[in-house]
Amino acid sequence: MTQREEHRKHKNPVPAVDFLISKDNNSKILLVRRKNDPFKGMLSIPGGFINEGETAEDAMRREAEEETSLIVEPTAILGVYSDPRRDPRMHTLSVTFITRIVRGTENARDDAAALQWIKLEGDELDGLIQSQQIAFDHSKILSDYKKWIRATQGSVQSSTSTNLTFWSTKNKQSNEALQSKNQQRDK
Amino acid sequence: MTQREEHRKHKNPVPAVDFLISKDNNSKILLVRRKNDPFKGMLSIPGGFINEGETAEDAMRREAEEETSLIVEPTAILGVYSDPRRDPRMHTLSVTFITRIVRGTENARDDAAALQWIKLEGDELDGLIQSQQIAFDHSKILSDYKKWIRATQGSVQSSTSTNLTFWSTKNKQSNEALQSKNQQRDK
Repeated sequence: MTQREEHRKHKNPVPAVDFLISKDNNSKILLVRRKNDPFKGMLSIPGGFINEGETAEDAMRREAEEETSLIVEPTAILGVYSDPRRDPRMHTLSVTFITRIVRGTENARDDAAALQWIKLEGDELDGLIQSQQIAFDHSKILSDYKKWIRATQGSVQSSTSTNLTFWSTKNKQSNEALQSKNQQRDK
Repeated sequence: MTQREEHRKHKNPVPAVDFLISKDNNSKILLVRRKNDPFKGMLSIPGGFINEGETAEDAMRREAEEETSLIVEPTAILGVYSDPRRDPRMHTLSVTFITRIVRGTENARDDAAALQWIKLEGDELDGLIQSQQIAFDHSKILSDYKKWIRATQGSVQSSTSTNLTFWSTKNKQSNEALQSKNQQRDK
């Protein structure tokens, strides 16, 4: 038995990436209409699992191209989201990146039934969040992203190899909201 | 077969935490003399695997207490390190936290043969890095932490539920150094 096989008897969360793609000076965010369960038909930020042998950054680049046809690069880590209830299938851990578009035109592929640019500030996103049309814990991620934009306004673009990023400590209130949402789904 | 079992046929990196515990106004960092392989006898920052059902933050708190007897809290995420070559046993992904000590006195336990406070700036740490006595990719993490301290001097203490943190994009040079170190070990 290799050390890897030996270790696989233990159980760990499954690591994934999620990522924020924005345009128009960070005023609009790209959301994915989910083609498959969980949360089929709901909106999420793009993302997917990290494969063995692949860095988190490479998984993010691959998933961005697979789901949106866009070539993107990471500019910062918004946070790491690892609440065991964040995904109803299993315990996942999301490394959530902020990205910039390098090239390409958005075009829904793979798990994405459709893509939608949503204004970050204003009634549209608030309405989607309040009516629980945002999948997983992505309402919390979008809320953290809004805070991040307000906190770093303009300053991130100027840095080179390293970046100031934003990390939110676990928010008990939003975890409870998530649990309630999952319970609602299970009914 | 549950969705979790179904997914386990796929291979993903194993998520772990590493964390920086410092004292004397961030001038000294706590390192662990490793009791077990890999890198037995070498120094590392404290860390360990995240268990299923446990958040990254809770894994960090548990491992800190198990290895050092200290009660610590996360203050920021320094970065996520996921180079497939960072651990010779298997592909691991490290969520690396910056912490503050809440209470306790450091006392080596569990995987730690001994604990050592090392000055972050100066010849001692540089010497350990140059003589390749630092395990895994922790030389890179320590180098990023030094940059983070210089960049955020004092500003992190004042924030409350959210924090400005620091994230370094993949550094090709240090990945090559790591690969060379792993190759050396394998000889």
